[in-house]
Amino acid sequence: MKNKAGGANAIVRATKRHGNIAAVSPKNVGGKDIFSGKTEGNKGEGKNELKIRFLGGVGEIGKNMTALEYGKDIIVIDAGLTFPGDNMPGVDMVIPDVTYLAENRNRVRGIIITHGHEDHIGAIPYICKDIGAPIFGTKLTLTLIENKLREQRIEDAKLNCVKAGGIIKLGCFSVEFIGVNHSIAGAVALSVTTPVGVVFHSGDFKVEYTPVKDEVIDLPRIAEIGKKGVTLLLCESTNVEIDGYALSESAVKDALDRVFSENQKRRLIIATFASNVHRLQQILDLAVKHGRKVAFSGRSMINIAEAAARIGELDIPDKLVVDAERIRNFKDEEIVIISTGTQGEPMSALTRMASGEFNKVVIGENDTVVLSSSVIPGNEKMIYGVINNLYRLGAEVIYESLEPIHASGHACKEELKLLHTLLKPKFFIPVHGEYRHLKKHADLAKSLGMKDGEIMIAEIGDTVLLDGKRLKRGEKFKAGSRFVDGVGIDGEDSFVLRDRIHLSEDGLFVIVVGVEEASAELTSLEIIGKGLVVTDEIIAGARANILNALKNVDLKAVRDENELASIIRRGVKNYLYKTTKKNPMILPIVMVV
Amino acid sequence: MKNKAGGANAIVRATKRHGNIAAVSPKNVGGKDIFSGKTEGNKGEGKNELKIRFLGGVGEIGKNMTALEYGKDIIVIDAGLTFPGDNMPGVDMVIPDVTYLAENRNRVRGIIITHGHEDHIGAIPYICKDIGAPIFGTKLTLTLIENKLREQRIEDAKLNCVKAGGIIKLGCFSVEFIGVNHSIAGAVALSVTTPVGVVFHSGDFKVEYTPVKDEVIDLPRIAEIGKKGVTLLLCESTNVEIDGYALSESAVKDALDRVFSENQKRRLIIATFASNVHRLQQILDLAVKHGRKVAFSGRSMINIAEAAARIGELDIPDKLVVDAERIRNFKDEEIVIISTGTQGEPMSALTRMASGEFNKVVIGENDTVVLSSSVIPGNEKMIYGVINNLYRLGAEVIYESLEPIHASGHACKEELKLLHTLLKPKFFIPVHGEYRHLKKHADLAKSLGMKDGEIMIAEIGDTVLLDGKRLKRGEKFKAGSRFVDGVGIDGEDSFVLRDRIHLSEDGLFVIVVGVEEASAELTSLEIIGKGLVVTDEIIAGARANILNALKNVDLKAVRDENELASIIRRGVKNYLYKTTKKNPMILPIVMVV
Repeated sequence: MKNKAGGANAIVRATKRHGNIAAVSPKNVGGKDIFSGKTEGNKGEGKNELKIRFLGGVGEIGKNMTALEYGKDIIVIDAGLTFPGDNMPGVDMVIPDVTYLAENRNRVRGIIITHGHEDHIGAIPYICKDIGAPIFGTKLTLTLIENKLREQRIEDAKLNCVKAGGIIKLGCFSVEFIGVNHSIAGAVALSVTTPVGVVFHSGDFKVEYTPVKDEVIDLPRIAEIGKKGVTLLLCESTNVEIDGYALSESAVKDALDRVFSENQKRRLIIATFASNVHRLQQILDLAVKHGRKVAFSGRSMINIAEAAARIGELDIPDKLVVDAERIRNFKDEEIVIISTGTQGEPMSALTRMASGEFNKVVIGENDTVVLSSSVIPGNEKMIYGVINNLYRLGAEVIYESLEPIHASGHACKEELKLLHTLLKPKFFIPVHGEYRHLKKHADLAKSLGMKDGEIMIAEIGDTVLLDGKRLKRGEKFKAGSRFVDGVGIDGEDSFVLRDRIHLSEDGLFVIVVGVEEASAELTSLEIIGKGLVVTDEIIAGARANILNALKNVDLKAVRDENELASIIRRGVKNYLYKTTKKNPMILPIVMVV
Repeated sequence: MKNKAGGANAIVRATKRHGNIAAVSPKNVGGKDIFSGKTEGNKGEGKNELKIRFLGGVGEIGKNMTALEYGKDIIVIDAGLTFPGDNMPGVDMVIPDVTYLAENRNRVRGIIITHGHEDHIGAIPYICKDIGAPIFGTKLTLTLIENKLREQRIEDAKLNCVKAGGIIKLGCFSVEFIGVNHSIAGAVALSVTTPVGVVFHSGDFKVEYTPVKDEVIDLPRIAEIGKKGVTLLLCESTNVEIDGYALSESAVKDALDRVFSENQKRRLIIATFASNVHRLQQILDLAVKHGRKVAFSGRSMINIAEAAARIGELDIPDKLVVDAERIRNFKDEEIVIISTGTQGEPMSALTRMASGEFNKVVIGENDTVVLSSSVIPGNEKMIYGVINNLYRLGAEVIYESLEPIHASGHACKEELKLLHTLLKPKFFIPVHGEYRHLKKHADLAKSLGMKDGEIMIAEIGDTVLLDGKRLKRGEKFKAGSRFVDGVGIDGEDSFVLRDRIHLSEDGLFVIVVGVEEASAELTSLEIIGKGLVVTDEIIAGARANILNALKNVDLKAVRDENELASIIRRGVKNYLYKTTKKNPMILPIVMVV
């Protein structure tokens, strides 16, 4: 990645490098603001207004991306992806359309990543060249980004490590990293001091009083920031519909401990999110306690465990881990397998085990499989498909709310109320949620005393203007989704997806006609149907209809192949709908010979 | 439907006819068994074993269909459909493969339907001609079937009405209809007396002590049957994972009453399942109480409400209902709209309201929309899409567990235990559930004292043999899914779906080559890509690869077009994968001119 942005020189001090990650030592760990007034670029521009631009993560779950813009300076918070919906066949992933940032790349001072989940880092390999700004995050976050960049052979990205408590200055913005709890280590919220006041971005967070290894969320610092005054809160909304508090990881540890105790003679297979290194740590600790070896299964599980261990986020005792190839050398009660595949992903280790296609682990009646994970909406069918297959093979399966074997990483209602109450923001924009989540989060803020004019629900492509006194809707800008598809990237307005959906629902009807150039006579007619329930009679009927349509046409008078193609299309369309109740894609191909 | 089966003459007595529904007066309403020994056909056949054949509804939710076979006699219980999964693009519905029953149609004495939901009646229009047996059900069930048959213009089906408490004799079987509660009126369980003992089929049921209109489930009769001895229980498993009891409809009434009270100045739109006539009745009653008119919205809602009112299952007071066209003539507080669309079905009234495409009802800030329904797994994204859009238009939305505005129609754990305990069956086969439900239901039966050998989990295509003393696995028979697609019906092994999925994920690459017959020379080459992200360079590269492949071929030596097509396919396949990371469907078309 070529760094053409001016932001890098604003970094306070770079001290060490791991790979190509620069470690930034914060000037002021205690959290004293280092921002000292407007930068030169702001004069006369932007009417002294902060622009908050929403590129993703509002009106949807996933591909989080927000930009703050003041005068000449832009900073970006997060660059996530989302996984394609059922209406996006063949698409590998969906990323934000960053046209606006690419067009203003010389003003982008930095991309700040709150944590290492896919919906926060996944778009980086696809957008970093377009934006060209340095990337800032905590250690595990950057390690996961580095893995991604390596896979895509991107070598020149500038990754800058910031610790929780650290502050970086990017143009007119100063950004303080505040440690929070989440279902991944190294998650932070951001307190951004801007010329119009403090903007607090929660990132994804929960309040975890008894964490596995991480610090407890820095509530004292959050309270201090609140006391000084927060102009705008951007707060995540994922669990706003859930009453009370998110379960603690320590409850999960107790539940998993019971699973180990109650399955002493059985083999244990625990599937969990690879990036949830605290969960991995708990399982490793329990393996030690119960005298089992650990085998990691699934490429991403192995990669992330290795990376987390390398940077000290995961503590793997010597000789605890055995290679997955050696699983069969151990008795059932001697091993616990930690696997990917909690969402029933077709190629994951667990899915292949369940369908009997994973020769390293053959599931049987002495296996207990634990899904230490939540069901991501939309994945229900795939996940239950895996569970059904595991049962078919005779295994016991522990999942969902049967036991408290998973704790959400997102704040529930009472935790959200705590953050609002500590920060007492003047203005509030809910983020990270579908519209209903944002609406309910707005209602929650109102229940705490905020007024209608102080809250705004934004959608992708919205600019919100903030002058410190008022929150206003600004202009729409080009934003939306881009589809990563094989090696290509395509926009929302592309015909490719529309064609695919058309083909998948109604099938294809290819009609090739040969026309002799000299005589303008029809020499041949070939019909091929694909993805369509047709009989020989229907093909014959279609042929008759096409010939009939062409009979009435003086081929000499037809201007071009397109005109002939549309005559053919019109000639057969109604017949096909009448006989098949389908509107297949009709592809007439005219060969002039 | 031509009735070639001999079963009809076994019906005790037909008394009246509504349309083409014959009303069967049970000989013995009190429930005394009228079965009196083996019928002639049984001698020497089937080794005195009852065969239970599973055609659908086991290992899946949906398309319920089970056959009981003894000697020459077969009866069928239910004939449902299921809605297509994400892996079945373009498919309208999925029905059971009834090849076995069609091949033995002269032995099928009747099709008995437990209630009128789609997963119990939906396949009837597609299979009744193949099986040709009379159909038995309660009044509402048959009315709904009649609607379906009329839509498909099937006029000669013989529908026979049986009341709860009634008994019919079909070959060697006598079948008693036992009233149960469910989320549709007229639901029954079946107690089938067979030569090897009583087989009790629960249908879908719940235990409702405070029903809206229907009778309470006939627990005294169930207890009596249990006391006499039940050989085999087939029991539904839908809610086996849910502790306790299903919520009562009376709790729903109270919750909906509160919604009316709390929204006195607002317009109310309540979406519910059209077939849940008890829920409709509750809403009508509340509309009367709160002084609102009612408008039905959505074709199936109007059809079912009319049909239910006609047969007396729905009590609609005079002048309560107004035409949907007249909604705008009423003030918001004067009307309640009852709508289809609880599952976010794309063409439903509610979905169109939410996307602003339903001109009879324009959603605004004074609307409160209630989804008095459950989320059918797999529909989450569509339903939440509708909810998000309703919020975007400013409406309030009440859904899911925010309020007890919906009660499940399926027995939860404690209700299942009650049925097992009353019936005390010798053998048990769980039905109506994915494998995990069946497994958990088997576990529940074990927790009540049943042994492993007394329980069997069956899957589609399984035959289970029962001689009264033992439950054994029998032979597999041809069974599975058939896809209704437009007007065609296609099997699981069809290429149509595979082609559609291939096209939708990887797109299409059509290559048309013209070859002159006389000289065997290539005269033209056309390439058309659809549903694939390709650049002009890729098209040019593909063209070069094809020409290169053909250059090395002596076209005179090529035997036929298929050989040439496969040379072309081989010539471009790897190039396309390398450049696009996709394997599009390559469709070479050779035109010999």
